[in-house]
Amino acid sequence: MAKDSYLVGLIGSGIGPSLSPALHQREADRQGLRYLYRLIDIDVAGVPPEAVGRLVRAARDLGFDGLNITHPCKQLVIEHLDALAPQAEALGAVNTVVFEAGGRAVGHNTDVTGFAASFARGLRDAPLESVVQLGAGGAGAAVAHATLTLGAERVTVVDAVAGRAAGLAEQLCGQFGAGRAVSAGPERLPELLAGADGLVHATPTGMAAHPGMPVAAELLHPGLWVAEVVYRPLETELVRTARALGCAVLDGGGMAVFQAADAFRLFTGREPDSGRMLADIAELGERSAGQVV
Amino acid sequence: MAKDSYLVGLIGSGIGPSLSPALHQREADRQGLRYLYRLIDIDVAGVPPEAVGRLVRAARDLGFDGLNITHPCKQLVIEHLDALAPQAEALGAVNTVVFEAGGRAVGHNTDVTGFAASFARGLRDAPLESVVQLGAGGAGAAVAHATLTLGAERVTVVDAVAGRAAGLAEQLCGQFGAGRAVSAGPERLPELLAGADGLVHATPTGMAAHPGMPVAAELLHPGLWVAEVVYRPLETELVRTARALGCAVLDGGGMAVFQAADAFRLFTGREPDSGRMLADIAELGERSAGQVV
Repeated sequence: MAKDSYLVGLIGSGIGPSLSPALHQREADRQGLRYLYRLIDIDVAGVPPEAVGRLVRAARDLGFDGLNITHPCKQLVIEHLDALAPQAEALGAVNTVVFEAGGRAVGHNTDVTGFAASFARGLRDAPLESVVQLGAGGAGAAVAHATLTLGAERVTVVDAVAGRAAGLAEQLCGQFGAGRAVSAGPERLPELLAGADGLVHATPTGMAAHPGMPVAAELLHPGLWVAEVVYRPLETELVRTARALGCAVLDGGGMAVFQAADAFRLFTGREPDSGRMLADIAELGERSAGQVV
Repeated sequence: MAKDSYLVGLIGSGIGPSLSPALHQREADRQGLRYLYRLIDIDVAGVPPEAVGRLVRAARDLGFDGLNITHPCKQLVIEHLDALAPQAEALGAVNTVVFEAGGRAVGHNTDVTGFAASFARGLRDAPLESVVQLGAGGAGAAVAHATLTLGAERVTVVDAVAGRAAGLAEQLCGQFGAGRAVSAGPERLPELLAGADGLVHATPTGMAAHPGMPVAAELLHPGLWVAEVVYRPLETELVRTARALGCAVLDGGGMAVFQAADAFRLFTGREPDSGRMLADIAELGERSAGQVV
């Protein structure tokens, strides 16, 4: 019985509206698994982000098969794990912990693999000579790793905080080779986007709580593909505007689904049907569109 | 969604063969609930019984709805709870913890209510003037409380450890009134059983790991009802022998089912179908009869 029964959860702050429980549990139900996905919100539990180590150990002792980890614990969790998969090690961030037989806790990063899978599916054959990425936070680091892994020749990282963009670019060059990443300030976006193949957007702008456009609409042009990380709503102002211009566009739903699908595979050893999960997120997103999140 | 989704578990030592996961999950499946029952074995986790407080707090933080508690943690857990239901308070032992809205941890004892419900169902109208109970450990304390609550006039507690029998009898008199319970040594069993209405058996003898009869077969007689606490196997040597003699007999399956049913009701607020659960335990017991447990 235990073999077909899975207990997982998400540790993070302010995660109440997460679609992960529904995404995982719907796929598990279709596969006939007993599968429970619990939200472990550190704000609700009243514990600081540094408690993530204690929570991970407790989850192992209480019979969890694995955990997703999100803001603000993706870096903090690392010192409490027994091993890291290559993507997580390269990135220095973990969004998935798997408890292996015997209790070893292994960290993975399915944000990286999830964005790569979504990109490969939705923007196959998109040119990758010159990519501009907006946002150098946690999501930005993950998607820049993915874009460079996919073969991007150069990623220019733009962030309102100059030091953060430079720091990420330096880390990326250390991983992928000198010159593969550079940083720039937002004031250079007009010239950068005019000459770029694509724009990756990895800031919170466009989320229900942060509506608006992350770049001026007039900087977009039909020769630019646009990849969005925000997935609530699926149709952000950026996605809508770029589509109207005729850009090839990847919304944030694909990354959300493929990171969940990759975690599902790690937790269960079973192959999820990502096509069905993409249909789920479209339906779930619509259903929650009217909610304040 | 969360409303129809339940995460519970059992904390104890050596609980691998427990039928509780199957009993709870089968009933939940019939009610269409997403319900996961995890075994949290302190031996497997490598923690001492005193860690139960930490495990209970962690379970609350990690989204559990409640816990069952068994040997050797039923007393140890009490100091870590916010409130006790009357049976648990009277007995000084908790086998069920419910996390209420807001996180309050409340202790209950469904061993007491479970034995009482099983007795009321299987030995309705059995005479209760004089009851002999074998075993003054944790199970013995629970069933003696139940028997006296059901109206037994006097329970004579017999235990190989004289001080333990006397201690339980004294505690019972404090709760139920002077003279309601007395203690005796095993050498007095012949005279005690000759004049008794019923025998409650609450020692481990008869379990797969402790086969045999807890009393000499010749001390049983058709005028004696027999209530067994052991439920693996359902047909202990005591149950078989007493049935062959024509005694009214209650096997241990009823207590196992009704304590689980009462816990299920506490965890979910839903009414379990104990008749279906009795059929489950008969089938599960048969299925595991060939296993070494």
